[in-house]
Amino acid sequence: MANSKFEYVKLYESDDRLLPRTYIVIRVDGRGFHQFSKKYDFEKPNDLNALNCMNKAAEGVMRNVQDVFLAYGQSDEYSFVFLKDTNLFERRASKLMSTVVSTFTANYIYAWSQLFPNNPLDGNFLPTFDSRAVMYPDVQSLKDYFSWRQADCHINNLYNTTFWTLVQKGQLTPHDAQTKLIGTLSADKNEILFTDFGINYNNEPEMFKKGSILRWEKLDHKYPKNPTKRQLDKYRKSVRDAKINILHCDIIKDEQFWNDVLAEEDTAATTTPTS
Amino acid sequence: MANSKFEYVKLYESDDRLLPRTYIVIRVDGRGFHQFSKKYDFEKPNDLNALNCMNKAAEGVMRNVQDVFLAYGQSDEYSFVFLKDTNLFERRASKLMSTVVSTFTANYIYAWSQLFPNNPLDGNFLPTFDSRAVMYPDVQSLKDYFSWRQADCHINNLYNTTFWTLVQKGQLTPHDAQTKLIGTLSADKNEILFTDFGINYNNEPEMFKKGSILRWEKLDHKYPKNPTKRQLDKYRKSVRDAKINILHCDIIKDEQFWNDVLAEEDTAATTTPTS
Amino acid sequence: MANSKFEYVKLYESDDRLLPRTYIVIRVDGRGFHQFSKKYDFEKPNDLNALNCMNKAAEGVMRNVQDVFLAYGQSDEYSFVFLKDTNLFERRASKLMSTVVSTFTANYIYAWSQLFPNNPLDGNFLPTFDSRAVMYPDVQSLKDYFSWRQADCHINNLYNTTFWTLVQKGQLTPHDAQTKLIGTLSADKNEILFTDFGINYNNEPEMFKKGSILRWEKLDHKYPKNPTKRQLDKYRKSVRDAKINILHCDIIKDEQFWNDVLAEEDTAATTTPTS
Amino acid sequence: MANSKFEYVKLYESDDRLLPRTYIVIRVDGRGFHQFSKKYDFEKPNDLNALNCMNKAAEGVMRNVQDVFLAYGQSDEYSFVFLKDTNLFERRASKLMSTVVSTFTANYIYAWSQLFPNNPLDGNFLPTFDSRAVMYPDVQSLKDYFSWRQADCHINNLYNTTFWTLVQKGQLTPHDAQTKLIGTLSADKNEILFTDFGINYNNEPEMFKKGSILRWEKLDHKYPKNPTKRQLDKYRKSVRDAKINILHCDIIKDEQFWNDVLAEEDTAATTTPTS
Repeated sequence: MANSKFEYVKLYESDDRLLPRTYIVIRVDGRGFHQFSKKYDFEKPNDLNALNCMNKAAEGVMRNVQDVFLAYGQSDEYSFVFLKDTNLFERRASKLMSTVVSTFTANYIYAWSQLFPNNPLDGNFLPTFDSRAVMYPDVQSLKDYFSWRQADCHINNLYNTTFWTLVQKGQLTPHDAQTKLIGTLSADKNEILFTDFGINYNNEPEMFKKGSILRWEKLDHKYPKNPTKRQLDKYRKSVRDAKINILHCDIIKDEQFWNDVLAEEDTAATTTPTS
Repeated sequence: MANSKFEYVKLYESDDRLLPRTYIVIRVDGRGFHQFSKKYDFEKPNDLNALNCMNKAAEGVMRNVQDVFLAYGQSDEYSFVFLKDTNLFERRASKLMSTVVSTFTANYIYAWSQLFPNNPLDGNFLPTFDSRAVMYPDVQSLKDYFSWRQADCHINNLYNTTFWTLVQKGQLTPHDAQTKLIGTLSADKNEILFTDFGINYNNEPEMFKKGSILRWEKLDHKYPKNPTKRQLDKYRKSVRDAKINILHCDIIKDEQFWNDVLAEEDTAATTTPTS
Repeated sequence: MANSKFEYVKLYESDDRLLPRTYIVIRVDGRGFHQFSKKYDFEKPNDLNALNCMNKAAEGVMRNVQDVFLAYGQSDEYSFVFLKDTNLFERRASKLMSTVVSTFTANYIYAWSQLFPNNPLDGNFLPTFDSRAVMYPDVQSLKDYFSWRQADCHINNLYNTTFWTLVQKGQLTPHDAQTKLIGTLSADKNEILFTDFGINYNNEPEMFKKGSILRWEKLDHKYPKNPTKRQLDKYRKSVRDAKINILHCDIIKDEQFWNDVLAEEDTAATTTPTS
Repeated sequence: MANSKFEYVKLYESDDRLLPRTYIVIRVDGRGFHQFSKKYDFEKPNDLNALNCMNKAAEGVMRNVQDVFLAYGQSDEYSFVFLKDTNLFERRASKLMSTVVSTFTANYIYAWSQLFPNNPLDGNFLPTFDSRAVMYPDVQSLKDYFSWRQADCHINNLYNTTFWTLVQKGQLTPHDAQTKLIGTLSADKNEILFTDFGINYNNEPEMFKKGSILRWEKLDHKYPKNPTKRQLDKYRKSVRDAKINILHCDIIKDEQFWNDVLAEEDTAATTTPTS
């Protein structure tokens, strides 16, 4: 089709392709979710429905954006990691991060309508997210990235659990609860929960303490080698139909988890279609 | 709050701040909207409801993302331009483009529920978008950018109008219509429409031919100078309440339009809060 | 010629083209010139020969790297600015900054052999430089860049002149001279020079106070319009033969200077060959 | 020291730090060396003095730029690779590539004065180089990078050797020699050399066929762990005094070479000072 003389402005776009053979992680973060959780009356410290809504949104990303092999979420954030050799969108950072965050947003809102039938969204207060792309050049830094997010989950959840217990069961004002927790270590917070309220933090739900890990069920996620168009369509259909497992395990210490995930990834990687 | 030993992985993030004193344009593009329009039975060549849904989504961006002073949309795309001196998110490209596309997606889906009450979204076929950020260092290149998009709108709409007229009124198969149009110039397409079908292309709706321009109504959009927190809140509230005008004028030739828009922007720019 | 199977590694290079229609400034900085000036016994606070050596090196850059229209140097640094529309090396940052710094280094060493015949370079202590590329999107920021460097020249030279006068004529130790100057303003330093040593700072050499500006003599620097290969060769020869003027004027306050320089640049820019 | 109001322009500089834990390769390339070799009457196809001059320049880089552990050169190019964990210049691309190319240029010109005493440089025709920085995230891609350059050396040297033999010994014009070689494979060129001129390409000098590899002699290159200032100075002095070996081995097939080099690098890397 004909082009206009103005087309030169396309040259102002920059090429933001990410380095080959690195793990690309896209992290999605809720915008203003502190306010958002107040507006829609989330249970504190954790709202089960809201976390399930995040998980549903993440599933939507895994099913609709090619080559995501692992995701981890907690609170109002989710991280997605792509096959090391993905060539999706020629690895362009802006395409990857915008597609992921848009797909996440769309699926979050859709899941909301299913999970919160009595709490409809207000058009002036919709859930939105931002995203960023980070490259990790080796397995060690990738594992440390996920360990960072899971350690963050633990630290925040222990704090929030103690804070809200002090407020909800201990009748402290938020200000007094905050003051009481200044300078406390993990052991101190466990002690407060146990001694004052009879709560054993270890018995709290795993999803709250560890966050959620999404993985394809092993056997369904196999790339055909140098696929034909038909094989590729079939593969994509199989992913669309494959089961996604939700785990709440410890990914900081669990070597077996990473052996499983990366063996899987390595197999897949060597036969990644160039899309 | 305590940090973990894994936090070093944060250093792998890159600094993607855009050059100061350039116009930042974020363009949002529908993903797979050819299929999407089939799935939801859009009228061809233009579905009024679908275009209004895009416009509503763009309004949502203008109301919820600070410092956007102008937007232009056509077909399944929308471009947003920020105040030259915006310091939103410290001008970080990933924050800007992800926030815009997420806000656009959320508002599109919300608007859909209002505009298409009898055509609900299928959770396996949600509307998603990608986005990119481009810098334009001066007014000329910025105007040429918008001219490029409006010229694109004209070229595509004239083609689509002729194509669908041949199919819908001329009883041609899509393949035959396509063949007939190969190598035709604008004048040829106008002629086909007029001679064979009595359609004067000039009388087609302006929104279809020119796309949609969103602007703040002039007087409501004034930044306070070195605003206090209270002034800033007030300003933001005023923008939230300000009227957004939707225009379908010719922005390629109309100097007055740009004088108005940029006079406005220049005034605003000199007093942009550093947020 | 045949290629090897290893050529894929070329894909790991990133595209670092700078934004069109911005002023590209390359600044070259001496590495370890404090030590270097000691090693080769530079006169303090300013060594005329050493500054001339810098100026010669800068001339070499202007003559051998296309499209530089202005340069400014002081102390051990030099800044070069390219025609706004230069397409040299497709505006790739690494090509531009490395070519400039290599050409500067080569010419510095060559000029040294002419200017310091009795002070030959030691192969273990050669002069080296680093460089960086910065974009300025408009005339105001470009002027402010040069004003920044010239203000820096003034601030450092007044300090150094006073410091070395205290040491050389006032018999203070370097440590005592430094202590005496802590917290002093410009006026105080002028006063010390004048009252204690009878030195009127205003009478110091202009090159020391203002640094050096290099410009093509006006009429010789004209691009042919859409040049043929032969015209381009002729133009390049004319630049090779053109005179370069060295000025030591005030570029912070002098509007006329900028009007002259940029009028010249604008003329040139509109007819820049795409090389 | 006081700052000026113009200092804001510093914000226009971008942060170009390279990704942690990747191998940074800086490649230096001669500018216009085809002309340069004519101007200074280089012997064809290989000028031993000129190649030694390149090697001397590369040694200068290894001695004067910290953390380079391996270099490879051929023709008018040289590649330098840094310790994976180097923190030199905070890994800023522009600092790294400009420092390397400036140091290379300075040492090349100095070496020239030693190696070509009767062929002094003309100030209007000085040797200059450009440079670029590329990241390789793993050992495989790093090895393939060097294999790419060595394969390139082989391909070009076989071609040039045959071409210049045809011209020098076969009395062909350059044009006829070029024509004769069109479409020939390696085997054909070997055949021409052997059958027509009695030259066994395998007996050509290794430096011409394989290029030059520079490595630190093993034991001298050890980083102290968390070095004090004094230890660091001592280490740097030891590198300054360490021997650099020049090899012309096959790095494409030789696994042992890489095992040696990288074992060494890994040891060094784990104790890299953050300088």
